[in-house]
Amino acid sequence: MIGIRRAGIIASALVMSICLWAPLSFGGADRDKLLSEPGVFGTFATFSLGETWVKQDQATRIGQLALLKGVVEQHREKIAVDLYLLRGLSDYGDLMFRVHASELRDTQQFLLDLQSSAFGKHLKGAGLMHGLTKKANYVPGFPDQLKTDLKVASEPGSKPYAIVIPVRKSAEWWALDQDKRAAMMQEHTEATMPYLKTVKRKLYHSSGLDDLDFITYFETSKLEDFHSLILSLEKVKEFQYTRRLGHPTLIGVVKSLDEMIEVLAQ
Amino acid sequence: MIGIRRAGIIASALVMSICLWAPLSFGGADRDKLLSEPGVFGTFATFSLGETWVKQDQATRIGQLALLKGVVEQHREKIAVDLYLLRGLSDYGDLMFRVHASELRDTQQFLLDLQSSAFGKHLKGAGLMHGLTKKANYVPGFPDQLKTDLKVASEPGSKPYAIVIPVRKSAEWWALDQDKRAAMMQEHTEATMPYLKTVKRKLYHSSGLDDLDFITYFETSKLEDFHSLILSLEKVKEFQYTRRLGHPTLIGVVKSLDEMIEVLAQ
Amino acid sequence: MIGIRRAGIIASALVMSICLWAPLSFGGADRDKLLSEPGVFGTFATFSLGETWVKQDQATRIGQLALLKGVVEQHREKIAVDLYLLRGLSDYGDLMFRVHASELRDTQQFLLDLQSSAFGKHLKGAGLMHGLTKKANYVPGFPDQLKTDLKVASEPGSKPYAIVIPVRKSAEWWALDQDKRAAMMQEHTEATMPYLKTVKRKLYHSSGLDDLDFITYFETSKLEDFHSLILSLEKVKEFQYTRRLGHPTLIGVVKSLDEMIEVLAQ
Amino acid sequence: MIGIRRAGIIASALVMSICLWAPLSFGGADRDKLLSEPGVFGTFATFSLGETWVKQDQATRIGQLALLKGVVEQHREKIAVDLYLLRGLSDYGDLMFRVHASELRDTQQFLLDLQSSAFGKHLKGAGLMHGLTKKANYVPGFPDQLKTDLKVASEPGSKPYAIVIPVRKSAEWWALDQDKRAAMMQEHTEATMPYLKTVKRKLYHSSGLDDLDFITYFETSKLEDFHSLILSLEKVKEFQYTRRLGHPTLIGVVKSLDEMIEVLAQ
Amino acid sequence: MIGIRRAGIIASALVMSICLWAPLSFGGADRDKLLSEPGVFGTFATFSLGETWVKQDQATRIGQLALLKGVVEQHREKIAVDLYLLRGLSDYGDLMFRVHASELRDTQQFLLDLQSSAFGKHLKGAGLMHGLTKKANYVPGFPDQLKTDLKVASEPGSKPYAIVIPVRKSAEWWALDQDKRAAMMQEHTEATMPYLKTVKRKLYHSSGLDDLDFITYFETSKLEDFHSLILSLEKVKEFQYTRRLGHPTLIGVVKSLDEMIEVLAQ
Repeated sequence: MIGIRRAGIIASALVMSICLWAPLSFGGADRDKLLSEPGVFGTFATFSLGETWVKQDQATRIGQLALLKGVVEQHREKIAVDLYLLRGLSDYGDLMFRVHASELRDTQQFLLDLQSSAFGKHLKGAGLMHGLTKKANYVPGFPDQLKTDLKVASEPGSKPYAIVIPVRKSAEWWALDQDKRAAMMQEHTEATMPYLKTVKRKLYHSSGLDDLDFITYFETSKLEDFHSLILSLEKVKEFQYTRRLGHPTLIGVVKSLDEMIEVLAQ
Repeated sequence: MIGIRRAGIIASALVMSICLWAPLSFGGADRDKLLSEPGVFGTFATFSLGETWVKQDQATRIGQLALLKGVVEQHREKIAVDLYLLRGLSDYGDLMFRVHASELRDTQQFLLDLQSSAFGKHLKGAGLMHGLTKKANYVPGFPDQLKTDLKVASEPGSKPYAIVIPVRKSAEWWALDQDKRAAMMQEHTEATMPYLKTVKRKLYHSSGLDDLDFITYFETSKLEDFHSLILSLEKVKEFQYTRRLGHPTLIGVVKSLDEMIEVLAQ
Repeated sequence: MIGIRRAGIIASALVMSICLWAPLSFGGADRDKLLSEPGVFGTFATFSLGETWVKQDQATRIGQLALLKGVVEQHREKIAVDLYLLRGLSDYGDLMFRVHASELRDTQQFLLDLQSSAFGKHLKGAGLMHGLTKKANYVPGFPDQLKTDLKVASEPGSKPYAIVIPVRKSAEWWALDQDKRAAMMQEHTEATMPYLKTVKRKLYHSSGLDDLDFITYFETSKLEDFHSLILSLEKVKEFQYTRRLGHPTLIGVVKSLDEMIEVLAQ
Repeated sequence: MIGIRRAGIIASALVMSICLWAPLSFGGADRDKLLSEPGVFGTFATFSLGETWVKQDQATRIGQLALLKGVVEQHREKIAVDLYLLRGLSDYGDLMFRVHASELRDTQQFLLDLQSSAFGKHLKGAGLMHGLTKKANYVPGFPDQLKTDLKVASEPGSKPYAIVIPVRKSAEWWALDQDKRAAMMQEHTEATMPYLKTVKRKLYHSSGLDDLDFITYFETSKLEDFHSLILSLEKVKEFQYTRRLGHPTLIGVVKSLDEMIEVLAQ
Repeated sequence: MIGIRRAGIIASALVMSICLWAPLSFGGADRDKLLSEPGVFGTFATFSLGETWVKQDQATRIGQLALLKGVVEQHREKIAVDLYLLRGLSDYGDLMFRVHASELRDTQQFLLDLQSSAFGKHLKGAGLMHGLTKKANYVPGFPDQLKTDLKVASEPGSKPYAIVIPVRKSAEWWALDQDKRAAMMQEHTEATMPYLKTVKRKLYHSSGLDDLDFITYFETSKLEDFHSLILSLEKVKEFQYTRRLGHPTLIGVVKSLDEMIEVLAQ
């Protein structure tokens, strides 16, 4: 528990450095909307932390992290930012930013400011994927019972693990008529039911925005359940129309901005 | 809005540096022809900006950007150059130059001069694709109504987003006779009709010039519409003969040379 | 046998450096459980040793290795660590850590501490794969004789070689019903019988946790037998449903922490 | 036309530096034979020019280029060297050497001497492909008219563009009997007839010498014709037996050694 | 012939440096057995020579090469080492060591010692493949005449070129019964007969030891014959069950240790 004592020192250093932006509520007024509504762009930006970072002394690092906080704050009116620590779990990068915005240019401006900040100069881009949230495509046609079951509340408590799996469907999938796809998606959805409470899911549509059709995002505290969910989904008929699943599979731990600063300051 | 004040300073610095090339109309007399006629070579040259760039002080950077402007100006009789900021949207590069020329050697000479300029020494080649504009292949055989519909004017206003998607067709596609391909291309074209006003398209033929058959280029202010367009195109029969779509998908924001200099000077 | 004399010097240096953590029994109370029970996460973390390592003098290296020992010790309550020397046998990395933990976050914390240690700063991540141990899926339905045969004891004596082979099954495999898969897995299992005594096996389930379905882990002193085992498995019907085998195949030699320190100190 | 004035300075510098090897006729007595006869090995060696090159002052560069000329001269008895500027047209490399030799060891010795020369130390290998010229395999069985048509002279005048496309055929192709392959190659050859005058072709056989079956080499002044040629070849039946075309497609501009030195000296 | 004079200087320097290990017969008592018997592991270790190597003065390099000779000598009781110069012929590496050993650990120890030697610190691993020699699988069932024909002696004289081609068979191949595979291997073997005298072959079995099924090794003085051999093998039925051939194809020139030292000292 070395972290706890150190956290105090860092916290006071940060208070001194960043008193310019008070009060600091992480995420602006629109965060809830951005995270729940259709028509929002979700960007998954993965970075490696260069070797230059750790070579700096802690005071310098703390100062630069305060500037990171400033950059996030500066954009909070237009975008919602979530942070993930990939290091130690994923070899594709060390940090991931999930950014939601109504306009992809706002996300771009945030990432430009991030990368040109004193902190950002230590970051090396490791991947960038975009998707769009949309109204559920197949759900309206599902049986009423299934629709009701889908509304079950997620288990309370934190879901520390986040997993991002990009998906590309085959040309054969898109050539099927809507009814056939709907029937298979119903089977797919039924397979997810046992895991609704413990594994949260969010879907982004990527065709044209990236070399993908979908980005699937998961949060859970029970990775066994998440594994069982994916295994169930590999057994339904719709999976045979999947040409790419993962590559990369990104796995990380959700961190608040302050928690992430704490980790990076060490 | 830090950028605005700074822009003034940069602007005056540039005026002092580049007064040698006045008056500076970006794009020469042939630009309109190069951008509209068949038989023109289009090159998409993507670059990453090396770490050495940001390590320089701003005055040095502004001086080097003035030289960039000079290089573009020097070639404007023979080529038409468009610029795109990929950074923050694409992980394949930071900047993209789209160059149109009647002879690919003129494009080569521009890129050689660019890369050996003081600015260009900070650029690292991240990708290069070539294509050729040609007269529409299938359109002459389309029904008159469809031909008329295709002439609809694009919505006025700027289209800030540009997307580049390379395409490779299967051997089976090329083995089909012209009639079958024409019928499928008619279905393909009909699927694009709802998006004609909001998504501009341009096609380059690449067979032999690159590991591709086509480069498809899009401009839009509505990325949702662009996404819907690509999704529609994945559902027509012709898509089953597509072996590669994207890889990379390049997404960026259109910038004038002055806007780009403004971004890079910061 | 240069190593032996040198080992004495290193050993005494280490005793002086690490007397803070005595007594040093490598692996905590739960090691046996973690290595035998279902529901445990296994992580295979591969690293290259940077060129900076060998440029240091031996005293510095020995000091840093003592800190490595400290990091492993610090986490031994929650995780079980095994070490492998890949260098000279695998071109994917120099060292491999196999980490077993009930929670993947504990593995992450270990790897974070490892990489931020003075020793870890010389490590460059070369690969990370995760899997989950589960109860045998098909064995309960096997004939009694086969179940009995499977319980044969492994030959006594050390098994110095370890091989890690990731596996991905095709969509067709998962689409088969459980009976068909069970019948093929029985044939697969029977093919392994001649090698039960000389090749130890352990299976990790990865679907969703990585771009894989399984991680297969082997230990042997007879690589010829291991080769014959894999060849036998390529000849059973189930192999036709394997889409990826290896890529990478990791091959190394099991080392205790002290042995590894001895190798790295030279 | 900056180049012209500078060329004078460079030329005189070179005369002073390389007066040791006079008279300098680029290409030895056997060049014509090497370029026309069967049983000759053709090597395509692609290099990137490291960042260290441009950091040197021009006098140093000119001195090193004189040494390059010396290396080429020294080997001219045994090999024929052609040079291509890829930079600005290909992202696979900056320079390409095409080397013809009766023995691949002579090519190796040239490349070893090149790479260990003061100039060569700035080169970074970007690709190496080998093929063998052979007597025409299918032509002897073609109809007489076709054989006559194939003898048409190429249009006079320089053909500045060179394109290299590696090809791999499928196992199915090689499994066809000679008659079937001959019939398809006749269709293939007929498709090339409209471009015989404007696109020169040369074929190298690579099976076993590289991860390829063929290297196809083209020279033209009309890239539109070259594009049309490849498109025609994609439409004949034989193309369905092609598993790889390009990857990389190398496109460059033919340069004499003196022209290349001129370009590199700048 | 610069090399010859220089060789004298190097030779005397080496004599002074390495008089500790006299008499120096390269290859120990078991070399013949290791190169001819079944049950031996063959390792193909490819290295690039870092830029640091050539930056050293020649005396330093000669000193380090003497140490290389020492490392090889030190292991000659247990392993047989062959050396190949790939540079100028293969872009996968500069040097290749082929190591034969009864135990793969002995090969590992040699490579560890090599890489930690003063010379080895300039080497960068570029590839590592392992295989096992086994008794001929299909030959015992061949007709007597074919068995006799296979015993023909290789042409006398040196075979300077060596080529290494890794092979992976399809799952369909392994699913065939032994008789069918034997019949196809007989056809395969008959296709090799015209080249028995001029192309030497050696086969290593890799399943499980690497991402391969076989490593095929060839030596020849006539690369045309080698090309014709591979082309013949692409035309037999068995080739349709080959999923990977090459990738990489390694081509180099056989060098004795002294010859290699001579090359590297320059």
